[in-house]
Amino acid sequence: MANDVTTLRRRASARLGELYNEAELAAEPGWSEAEKMTLACRMLAADGHDTILPGLVTVRTAEPDIFLTLPMGVGFEEVTPRQILTIDKDLNVLQGHGKPPKAAGFLIRIHQLRPDSRCGIHTHALYTAALSMVGEPLAVAHMDATMFHDDCAFLTEWPGNPVTELEGELISRALGPKRAVLLANHGLATVGGSIEEAAWMALCFERAAKMQIRARSVGPLTSLDPEFARDAHDYMTDPSMVATQFRRFARRALRQDPGCLD
Amino acid sequence: MANDVTTLRRRASARLGELYNEAELAAEPGWSEAEKMTLACRMLAADGHDTILPGLVTVRTAEPDIFLTLPMGVGFEEVTPRQILTIDKDLNVLQGHGKPPKAAGFLIRIHQLRPDSRCGIHTHALYTAALSMVGEPLAVAHMDATMFHDDCAFLTEWPGNPVTELEGELISRALGPKRAVLLANHGLATVGGSIEEAAWMALCFERAAKMQIRARSVGPLTSLDPEFARDAHDYMTDPSMVATQFRRFARRALRQDPGCLD
Amino acid sequence: MANDVTTLRRRASARLGELYNEAELAAEPGWSEAEKMTLACRMLAADGHDTILPGLVTVRTAEPDIFLTLPMGVGFEEVTPRQILTIDKDLNVLQGHGKPPKAAGFLIRIHQLRPDSRCGIHTHALYTAALSMVGEPLAVAHMDATMFHDDCAFLTEWPGNPVTELEGELISRALGPKRAVLLANHGLATVGGSIEEAAWMALCFERAAKMQIRARSVGPLTSLDPEFARDAHDYMTDPSMVATQFRRFARRALRQDPGCLD
Amino acid sequence: MANDVTTLRRRASARLGELYNEAELAAEPGWSEAEKMTLACRMLAADGHDTILPGLVTVRTAEPDIFLTLPMGVGFEEVTPRQILTIDKDLNVLQGHGKPPKAAGFLIRIHQLRPDSRCGIHTHALYTAALSMVGEPLAVAHMDATMFHDDCAFLTEWPGNPVTELEGELISRALGPKRAVLLANHGLATVGGSIEEAAWMALCFERAAKMQIRARSVGPLTSLDPEFARDAHDYMTDPSMVATQFRRFARRALRQDPGCLD
Repeated sequence: MANDVTTLRRRASARLGELYNEAELAAEPGWSEAEKMTLACRMLAADGHDTILPGLVTVRTAEPDIFLTLPMGVGFEEVTPRQILTIDKDLNVLQGHGKPPKAAGFLIRIHQLRPDSRCGIHTHALYTAALSMVGEPLAVAHMDATMFHDDCAFLTEWPGNPVTELEGELISRALGPKRAVLLANHGLATVGGSIEEAAWMALCFERAAKMQIRARSVGPLTSLDPEFARDAHDYMTDPSMVATQFRRFARRALRQDPGCLD
Repeated sequence: MANDVTTLRRRASARLGELYNEAELAAEPGWSEAEKMTLACRMLAADGHDTILPGLVTVRTAEPDIFLTLPMGVGFEEVTPRQILTIDKDLNVLQGHGKPPKAAGFLIRIHQLRPDSRCGIHTHALYTAALSMVGEPLAVAHMDATMFHDDCAFLTEWPGNPVTELEGELISRALGPKRAVLLANHGLATVGGSIEEAAWMALCFERAAKMQIRARSVGPLTSLDPEFARDAHDYMTDPSMVATQFRRFARRALRQDPGCLD
Repeated sequence: MANDVTTLRRRASARLGELYNEAELAAEPGWSEAEKMTLACRMLAADGHDTILPGLVTVRTAEPDIFLTLPMGVGFEEVTPRQILTIDKDLNVLQGHGKPPKAAGFLIRIHQLRPDSRCGIHTHALYTAALSMVGEPLAVAHMDATMFHDDCAFLTEWPGNPVTELEGELISRALGPKRAVLLANHGLATVGGSIEEAAWMALCFERAAKMQIRARSVGPLTSLDPEFARDAHDYMTDPSMVATQFRRFARRALRQDPGCLD
Repeated sequence: MANDVTTLRRRASARLGELYNEAELAAEPGWSEAEKMTLACRMLAADGHDTILPGLVTVRTAEPDIFLTLPMGVGFEEVTPRQILTIDKDLNVLQGHGKPPKAAGFLIRIHQLRPDSRCGIHTHALYTAALSMVGEPLAVAHMDATMFHDDCAFLTEWPGNPVTELEGELISRALGPKRAVLLANHGLATVGGSIEEAAWMALCFERAAKMQIRARSVGPLTSLDPEFARDAHDYMTDPSMVATQFRRFARRALRQDPGCLD
């Protein structure tokens, strides 16, 4: 069947550009950055990223070296836009009540080394955490994991508790130019050119880890044709795809807590 | 014990016709096709079919080559009857707001090749997705999987992202005259002579995959007597059985969101 | 350590009678049989017994050969006391609307063969179903599974779809004088001298299967000291224990649906 | 990379004191001991500790040999502060309605042998229970399990049903000076210098077991650098960390049942 598929697929690949163009952005709901952060946190919390320590999220603002983040002790599952802090690169609070977690420093270090990143997310989502304990990289053995094709690094040693610049150095180095990294014995980090993109990659990461853990409890995984995986990667990370799915998961978060943006 | 069972079973088989006749349809609630589609989507979303990409569902209308489907970006978990689109076979919208996903084309291709199909469903339900990563067919090793006895195909290679006719060709060819197909590294597709039947097969598919993944994490599966499995298949796909269970899961969906048909 | 434990345990065993006496029944809420059946169904549905086919439950009334059961197509998750049917041993409806499922006949057959049974329950709970696919009996490798110590049979072959007397014969024969049986490629059946007891055994069965599947995905199980297991079995099946836990799970069902007894 | 990490980590370790100092206690909500017990029970129930038998919790009061505990038959998922009993070391009720479960005696025995313990918790949380069946200790192979580094014992044999002093002796002996113990074929016990600490250790225990079971279904675990694990242990058990996370999970419990402290 393989030859047959390849022929048919070639025709299909030629149409992919068309496909992307068709997936236009629907009307943008006009959410602020703090509102998008809140929605991202809520959709991740609902998907298993709500663990014993709150996750981290940082957003680079239009001002140089000024960032948004959550105060220490506030969980993804409960944050509201008013709680979001404005901080500088040394974690000094410029606006808002509370203090940023020290560990936010490692995401800020990534922002400095990756000028393309507007948003960074770090969580210990439960299946990702389990995967991080067995020495295997995130597998790309399913269409819904193709956004990680050649786009997910693996930091194979745990360098201890995150304490500012240190982990930022190590994780940035492991991450390189990719959108995601699996951190051994720890969790995930994703970066995106938008909040939507970083959130989408984090959401898909945990779901990919969940599929992988369940599949691996049965046996070894089958692999994807690399060319098809690359095409699918581009489809799955296209901004219109990301925006469309972010809005869908945002609606889910709003149904679960209609007051979450108040 | 086997001989004993066979003897007893023969007597029982003779009574199966009677059994079917007794399972009469209760009063039909009078749902429209769009309402049944909505209920099918909602019951599937509640059962793990609500993944990073929305599932697909198509319904053939009484008009030739005219179909119902969901607009791109609308999830099974949130759809209402008013959102459902009427489209032609080339995905042109005849009624409703929004656009159909390109991938709906592959279900429409199946409808063309399988004149008996009134409804097609495609999802990446999470246990099905995990199963699709390990190269094993859906197992029929439990009474609740017997609806797939000789009625579930296996497309063993992933032909890349679904882009209209292409996947329709491949999946139809793999599907043949069956009601269901496991798509490697991808998910499931089911077809039915009614919305109820396609939904029932999709719902049972994911539950069968869930049992299989959990069982296979322990060891190899025991098998069913093929004759008993065939009898049970017929029982489990009998229209009165399908209608009875569809209504039960529809009531569950209505309890979860009493306004879902508004 | 073993000797030490045995010595200490001997002293403890001597006090077990005292322990039972202390575990007095709290004030009985005065539920009718139909109300207890409803609560049992609701607590089981909330615990994974709500599968593609509704479970079965039968209760022997004070009248000879007269039973209570659920109408066909009504799920454990939705039943209310008013829906419960009164039937005779041939499944004729004496009171109520709807028809009993044919399969209820196999529980009635068990009632006839086991005069001590006042209630029978049969479900395809999901972890039990998975366990039933791998040819292993229910393990007693945890304190919370000791109620099945020498009290859970294993029917190792699936005799096809349940059609009245047939399965009743086979399951009764496998069950013998025990309270529970694992049905290969199928599910569980429990019998009890009360609704509370049959429900407790079914609830504990699925939880034991859940522990077993998860543990077996890691490796082989360690075993319990048979003497301790027997003592614990008696503790776990003591009527005051059963009544106490039934009331606790009934309160949970009532919190989830305060109107379930209306 | 290892050398590199070690160098960077040394610099980081020097800053850990600073990190702890920064993690100040936010304003204390002023909960009574009974309210904290209730919140601890509710957060544990929501996290899988709500099993077939209710968990146990004891709190040492300011009076010598006077303790708080839950009445027999009351589940973690439903307790309110008014239900909490005041008892003496022989389980006599000094205040409140109902009786303490006999098994509370084993936690009281631990309190007597461990004067530093103000709160003891014992549950059969479901993943912990599964882990307890396979003869493996709780693994410290993830940052979120480092609170158990050299702080979790393993009682490798099940001494039968808990009946007061007996299990207290055995578990205390196994526990030694640690905060937690995995009880073979049984569950977990944790002790803390505060309700918050015992609850935090129990909550993290089940989540660590959940990660371990899932990871072990794939293969053997990778290990942590012991020095880093020790540092992380201290961070994860720092009273300000414990208090911060307890409050976060308490807010979750209050959202799930706003009236739980009434």
